[in-house]
Amino acid sequence: MINPLSSPLLADLYEYTMLQSYIEHGLEETAVFEFFVRRLPPGRNFMVAAGLEQALGFLENLAFSAEELDWLSQRFPPHVIHYLKNFHFTGDVHAMREGTLFFPNEPIVRVTAPLPQAQLVESRLMNLLNFETLIATKAARSVLTAPDKLLVDFGMRRAHGAEAGLLAARASYLAGFAGTATVLAGMLYDIPVFGTMAHSFIQAHDDEAVAFEHFARSHPNNTILLIDTYDTEAAASKVVSLGAKLREQGITVKAVRIDSGDLAEHARQVRRILDDGGLKEITIFASGNLDEYQLHALLASAAPIDGFGIGTALDTSSDAPSLDCAYKLQEYAGRPRRKRSEGKATWPGRKQVYRNYTTDGQMVGDVLALEEHDAHPGEALIHPVMRAGRRVEPQLPIMALRQQVLTAYTHLPEALRGLEIGPAYRVEVSSALQKLAGQVDRSDL
Amino acid sequence: MINPLSSPLLADLYEYTMLQSYIEHGLEETAVFEFFVRRLPPGRNFMVAAGLEQALGFLENLAFSAEELDWLSQRFPPHVIHYLKNFHFTGDVHAMREGTLFFPNEPIVRVTAPLPQAQLVESRLMNLLNFETLIATKAARSVLTAPDKLLVDFGMRRAHGAEAGLLAARASYLAGFAGTATVLAGMLYDIPVFGTMAHSFIQAHDDEAVAFEHFARSHPNNTILLIDTYDTEAAASKVVSLGAKLREQGITVKAVRIDSGDLAEHARQVRRILDDGGLKEITIFASGNLDEYQLHALLASAAPIDGFGIGTALDTSSDAPSLDCAYKLQEYAGRPRRKRSEGKATWPGRKQVYRNYTTDGQMVGDVLALEEHDAHPGEALIHPVMRAGRRVEPQLPIMALRQQVLTAYTHLPEALRGLEIGPAYRVEVSSALQKLAGQVDRSDL
Repeated sequence: MINPLSSPLLADLYEYTMLQSYIEHGLEETAVFEFFVRRLPPGRNFMVAAGLEQALGFLENLAFSAEELDWLSQRFPPHVIHYLKNFHFTGDVHAMREGTLFFPNEPIVRVTAPLPQAQLVESRLMNLLNFETLIATKAARSVLTAPDKLLVDFGMRRAHGAEAGLLAARASYLAGFAGTATVLAGMLYDIPVFGTMAHSFIQAHDDEAVAFEHFARSHPNNTILLIDTYDTEAAASKVVSLGAKLREQGITVKAVRIDSGDLAEHARQVRRILDDGGLKEITIFASGNLDEYQLHALLASAAPIDGFGIGTALDTSSDAPSLDCAYKLQEYAGRPRRKRSEGKATWPGRKQVYRNYTTDGQMVGDVLALEEHDAHPGEALIHPVMRAGRRVEPQLPIMALRQQVLTAYTHLPEALRGLEIGPAYRVEVSSALQKLAGQVDRSDL
Repeated sequence: MINPLSSPLLADLYEYTMLQSYIEHGLEETAVFEFFVRRLPPGRNFMVAAGLEQALGFLENLAFSAEELDWLSQRFPPHVIHYLKNFHFTGDVHAMREGTLFFPNEPIVRVTAPLPQAQLVESRLMNLLNFETLIATKAARSVLTAPDKLLVDFGMRRAHGAEAGLLAARASYLAGFAGTATVLAGMLYDIPVFGTMAHSFIQAHDDEAVAFEHFARSHPNNTILLIDTYDTEAAASKVVSLGAKLREQGITVKAVRIDSGDLAEHARQVRRILDDGGLKEITIFASGNLDEYQLHALLASAAPIDGFGIGTALDTSSDAPSLDCAYKLQEYAGRPRRKRSEGKATWPGRKQVYRNYTTDGQMVGDVLALEEHDAHPGEALIHPVMRAGRRVEPQLPIMALRQQVLTAYTHLPEALRGLEIGPAYRVEVSSALQKLAGQVDRSDL
């Protein structure tokens, strides 16, 4: 059986054509690749590193099944199949901790391994790191826009496939969301799961009030009623009428959800109807094509909404559905390397990032430096996380990582926390690194 | 073991809270849900239906593992777990064939099953149909823009997770691409796989020409050389020098790839260098942040490029990363249903779509009608594909589906084939369906 999420064949064909040529020509010395993002996505002031956990899981379990080897053997010569037969990833990984706020050109993951290994894992590492970082970065914007609201990921149905739905739930929770609607994400990642009802539940009943009552009796401790199927305000009145009856049965309606129309206006009307009906404790939850800009507008209008389901815009990072990211060879066989393609030049060598803070804890600038003989003041952000194919330390529970991210936001300069583009955060390239880049350029010519 | 791609827990929590309430209140009669798209994505003139194969596979294999039931049993009462224990999908599915061109409000998949079943599968069906249709629709634009060029999916690394990379390869091939770089997609879906080399291959060598020669000797029948790592035109000259030497060894370089800079200008220079060097048979392949608009511009400038790798923009459908799609209850217990939420009203009942053509085979308009007692002239697009949980007929090989799509494009009105927005294709709602909608509205009040 092929597991598409862990198969080494989840790779671009060129990883295999190159691997063949590497082993045929003895290019098996140590290579150093770094994953970084070239530019901030449009509208963003910073990024949130995510996906390391899945990337390490991929590396740790990398192996070929008989079925996969058989398929490859029809396309590659026997010595390649022999090489892959007992293939394991035996390299080292250095990385920023998940949830670290980072900026363009700062590596968030470094892979150090024999060239064929470090090359083979390229496509899937990029696939995982690009996506989770993309979503954590998008989710952070909603969290910073509405820090006191309950934010729930509702996006799985329009996420790009199963894994996107799951990883979007994980990445948005990491970035500060309260949880997700996706059940399997709750099970796999131990994050809170939220759920209400769909319009079909109401429509399947001949009477909306009966639908509400049925749901309340099935879920007496978690009654959240969707009230916009026919007429939102009329439904709110039905909730009030029903409220007394349910209270007699010991059931308290917890919340109502509005999913269409002018959410602010409906929320105000509904709030008034509920309050007038003595149901001040019922909260209002809103959903329906929301993103951080609409959150901002709803909050600015003081709409009485307590929580938000954010779906498609979050899970697809709709305004910036990819990162301009790269996984580039920075050193091979002890010599630094540099790509110089137009508009895509990279910084050579193994790098460290140092972060500096003001005395009151505000981030003031980073230094991109060489790992060795180029120490700078500040917090070193890149740590060893895997040695010889095994994790250095167990992963922190995601709840703890999430807490670290919420703390990290408090260190962000105020001007970078909002939806507007703030002044560029300063990332200085150390003089040693600049010098090395110049040397590599000259030696290549 | 949980398989995230087939787990029934890959669902929104509300599917389960509703299911509980349905079975507690005896709402287990036949429900009819239809999947459709409300609006064309921005810039699109039509859509290409895709994802049915994966949707049917999901339904056919739906079952709960002991581990999944155990997790659920901590959150749902025993009678729900009992209901799920031997759960199978026993319903019917009607659908448009994969690759059918379709328009807003036309259902592409209809599910007819006991309400709790038809409800439970909502999230994953939407997740699959939304994504593959999205990508096939995006890919069609490149295919129609450059029908005579070799188009290859290069996008897995920035696709949203593993399944997105795989399904994007499948959907773009279905829509007319020549193949993909993603190895596992080739293995799972039997589609052609293409690959060259990365910049790291060149960089790992101390000398670019040596890198070229190493690669050529490893892949004598499929030598495609990446020439933009340092200086594109200088590299093209190295290919010429190398060409003679390789010919002596019986190796012919097949193509060169350019991945950065002004692709048209580089292609012209490189073409001239190759032609002057007597290497007219070497083709030029281009990649690097391409989409259908850049294809159009490159073709308009008569750039001598023979094939294109299209990556991120394709696999993320970057200009429109989701469809405004819905899976809505249209009938329950024999009675048509209609959602009337603002801006989201639906057409009730089980529907058929009839397509009409001019005498020379050009599509002229569709009729959205009721399935029964509402026949219209034209080709009926919706067919039974699953009965009682089993497929009605084996799926066509994807190569055959792809051929049907290429044929379907020839029936599209000329004005809808380009990148410009053409006149809206006419989709008429039958008078019987309009009448039914009015009746449902009145009966609900």
